[in-house]
Amino acid sequence: MTELEATVEIQRVLVPVLDLCGTFAFAISGALAGVRRRLDVFGVLVLSFVASSFGGIGRDLLIGATPPAALVDWRYLAVSLAAGLITFFWWPLIERLQTPVRLLDAIGLAFFAVAGAEKALAFGLNPVMAVLLGMLTGVGGGMVRDILLAEIPGVLRSDLYAVAALLAAAIVVGGHMLHLPVVPTAIVGGLLCFTLRMIAIRRGWGLPIAR
Amino acid sequence: MTELEATVEIQRVLVPVLDLCGTFAFAISGALAGVRRRLDVFGVLVLSFVASSFGGIGRDLLIGATPPAALVDWRYLAVSLAAGLITFFWWPLIERLQTPVRLLDAIGLAFFAVAGAEKALAFGLNPVMAVLLGMLTGVGGGMVRDILLAEIPGVLRSDLYAVAALLAAAIVVGGHMLHLPVVPTAIVGGLLCFTLRMIAIRRGWGLPIAR
Amino acid sequence: MTELEATVEIQRVLVPVLDLCGTFAFAISGALAGVRRRLDVFGVLVLSFVASSFGGIGRDLLIGATPPAALVDWRYLAVSLAAGLITFFWWPLIERLQTPVRLLDAIGLAFFAVAGAEKALAFGLNPVMAVLLGMLTGVGGGMVRDILLAEIPGVLRSDLYAVAALLAAAIVVGGHMLHLPVVPTAIVGGLLCFTLRMIAIRRGWGLPIAR
Repeated sequence: MTELEATVEIQRVLVPVLDLCGTFAFAISGALAGVRRRLDVFGVLVLSFVASSFGGIGRDLLIGATPPAALVDWRYLAVSLAAGLITFFWWPLIERLQTPVRLLDAIGLAFFAVAGAEKALAFGLNPVMAVLLGMLTGVGGGMVRDILLAEIPGVLRSDLYAVAALLAAAIVVGGHMLHLPVVPTAIVGGLLCFTLRMIAIRRGWGLPIAR
Repeated sequence: MTELEATVEIQRVLVPVLDLCGTFAFAISGALAGVRRRLDVFGVLVLSFVASSFGGIGRDLLIGATPPAALVDWRYLAVSLAAGLITFFWWPLIERLQTPVRLLDAIGLAFFAVAGAEKALAFGLNPVMAVLLGMLTGVGGGMVRDILLAEIPGVLRSDLYAVAALLAAAIVVGGHMLHLPVVPTAIVGGLLCFTLRMIAIRRGWGLPIAR
Repeated sequence: MTELEATVEIQRVLVPVLDLCGTFAFAISGALAGVRRRLDVFGVLVLSFVASSFGGIGRDLLIGATPPAALVDWRYLAVSLAAGLITFFWWPLIERLQTPVRLLDAIGLAFFAVAGAEKALAFGLNPVMAVLLGMLTGVGGGMVRDILLAEIPGVLRSDLYAVAALLAAAIVVGGHMLHLPVVPTAIVGGLLCFTLRMIAIRRGWGLPIAR
């Protein structure tokens, strides 16, 4: 296997795995929020799908990529419904598994931000907007989840969630502008996002509030 | 008149009537919610239009059918503004007419779910997503209505509203996959949705909540 | 310079100035709302951008003009981030400058409503919908701002905000239907909107609420 073939192979296997991991983790966050607010099983499943897919759906609507990927590929729906049902039935267990869920969530954030920025670039958005759309892909699902629960989106007032997504998207777009190879840039961006997110959780890092 | 001509004639007359009945009923639900929350007349009319049309508008944005049908055909707007003004001026009367309003609402739900699933199929969505978009057409307007009122959408936590829409959309899509004739399938789907919805109201049927 | 050249020159200079004034004022309204609700600096900047640009983005999504203008032209983002940062650091000053901020806001409303109606006409929407989309361009950003703060949009229950935007859009569309020259019609529409808005603030004019 040549080096190129190996890279392609890694991409072919790794990308869907990370994508579905992220979808799964985000869906759990939606389902848990729904269970806590006493939604019925339909509401819990709606929140699962919204939290996992509305970042990407928002991005696709904005760049004109209709119908959105999450409505064309049934696997996103299947994974988020599975996560929603698991959470609905075994939510006390899921709540105790906080650490692995946060780990998956940080993987999802990193992956969605990277993939979102790449898709925006592929659709010809300018670099600044590609960064923002990468970030939106990462945080948009959680924002719609919170809006559906009539709450101010948590990402607007706590810790370094969006900043980590912004960092990943900025690295992807910067690499694109400098004509660096795509896969290594994406990996660096994703890993930095993941690392920053995990440190921010552990240290309780957040952004300043106006005095 | 041949049988085919009769069918076409029924479709030509009945479809717009059911569509505008549904629009009218959904607009009343939006206007009543606005009056109860002390919105001014502009706010009440916005809620009328949103409740009656944003299910279909959401579907059209997602499938890429822009501008959405509700913005091209002025009759939807006219009917929802009429419903909004009637409710604004005579809301105590409308509140007393709960039974006919619920009847119209169930007709609207059935019709919107059927028509929404058919439109999604016509735009080439896969069967699973066509079912979901049919359901969205039925319940989306009410969800946006509730979001505008800063409330958790009622459909996420009570009775069999969305499930009835899901049933209608699933029957339409199932019929399409089995190459059954369109009109009878649509009628069966719509009637079952309507019936399930009316029974759910009467019996207080709902979906389970996580323990 | 001929009269036509003068007109073109005015349009070339004045239109972007008014557009960016409006963007600036709307962004301040978003940032102030974010500061008051104790969002972090990221949340404040999101609200700045949303309040200034989501009226136009909503219009562009509905008419199928993707990617929306606010994502293609980086100046909108730059102006709204600048307004957001200024507000974040000097919000007590901005709160004391209520009168000039309201003046800018009324200019923004007038300009957005006029420009929104013109864009909707250019995309072939029918006159009634062009009026509504002009109004949406003026009031949509503020509505999404309020939804993100889990509040009922202020425009649904207070004073003559939306009606002023509706007036401007209706004059633009009326002029279009009567084949009147575009620029004078736009100026008349914008000025009437601005004047009505300022009088409504001063006199406390509002719309009726259902009894």
